[in-house]
Amino acid sequence: MVDILHRVGVVAPLDDVYTAVATPEGIAAWWTTDTVGKSEVGETLALRFGEAGGFDLEVRELDPAGHVRWRVVEGPAEWIGTDIDWRLDRRGDYTIVLFGHEGWREPVEFMHHCSTKWATFLLSLKDYAETGRGRPAPDDVKISDWH
Amino acid sequence: MVDILHRVGVVAPLDDVYTAVATPEGIAAWWTTDTVGKSEVGETLALRFGEAGGFDLEVRELDPAGHVRWRVVEGPAEWIGTDIDWRLDRRGDYTIVLFGHEGWREPVEFMHHCSTKWATFLLSLKDYAETGRGRPAPDDVKISDWH
Repeated sequence: MVDILHRVGVVAPLDDVYTAVATPEGIAAWWTTDTVGKSEVGETLALRFGEAGGFDLEVRELDPAGHVRWRVVEGPAEWIGTDIDWRLDRRGDYTIVLFGHEGWREPVEFMHHCSTKWATFLLSLKDYAETGRGRPAPDDVKISDWH
Repeated sequence: MVDILHRVGVVAPLDDVYTAVATPEGIAAWWTTDTVGKSEVGETLALRFGEAGGFDLEVRELDPAGHVRWRVVEGPAEWIGTDIDWRLDRRGDYTIVLFGHEGWREPVEFMHHCSTKWATFLLSLKDYAETGRGRPAPDDVKISDWH
């Protein structure tokens, strides 16, 4: 089992970052505009990226104090069964985001790609929470032939 | 042991990307302007980031066909003894960069930070190889209180 790990610091209140991660409206502003579903524990969020497909995420944890966790239940084979974990913490002027995409079975090339791509989405989340403007798909940062 | 993994695709010849990774002049254009040393197997590159310190990298592998590998011999405690590995491959219009910062002892918070920061430097490398202009330190992308 291998994990993708990231950390960014967002100059915004923890509540704002939490709302950006924990609600479909928030996610649509930094990950993909095509995000629907109900953000309650046990419910599912559906994210789509046009022809590239997308993911269904089952909500496992929602704690406004600073913890969100999803299980990937539909999407690319490598993603199914993995968990995406968010921990938020205040430090000085920053809300620190500790991110993990956990439980990949193998460190395949697609995992390398997703690691870099996650970084661009975390910076999109940071921009959105700080300035009101992120770069969700289809306007996301393109990093390679795999987009 | 845990690894940081990334993948970007650069619209530039493999030779250009190799030179950007394998020479002090190249590294200075996307990672830190303060890069000195001799890029030969067994020699050391010294990278500095002002008051934040820096790294000494022993060159372990230099293959213009597409492989560069360094051992970190000086720097933050968590980095010492880790390896940084670059594999380049042509695919269509792209030079694909498969990157690994391998052999972290623990997935500490600083590793999360470095993972995100590496993504920004890989995109800086991509920009440099494609446009002639990267974002090396001290003009690097700031991602948090840890810069």
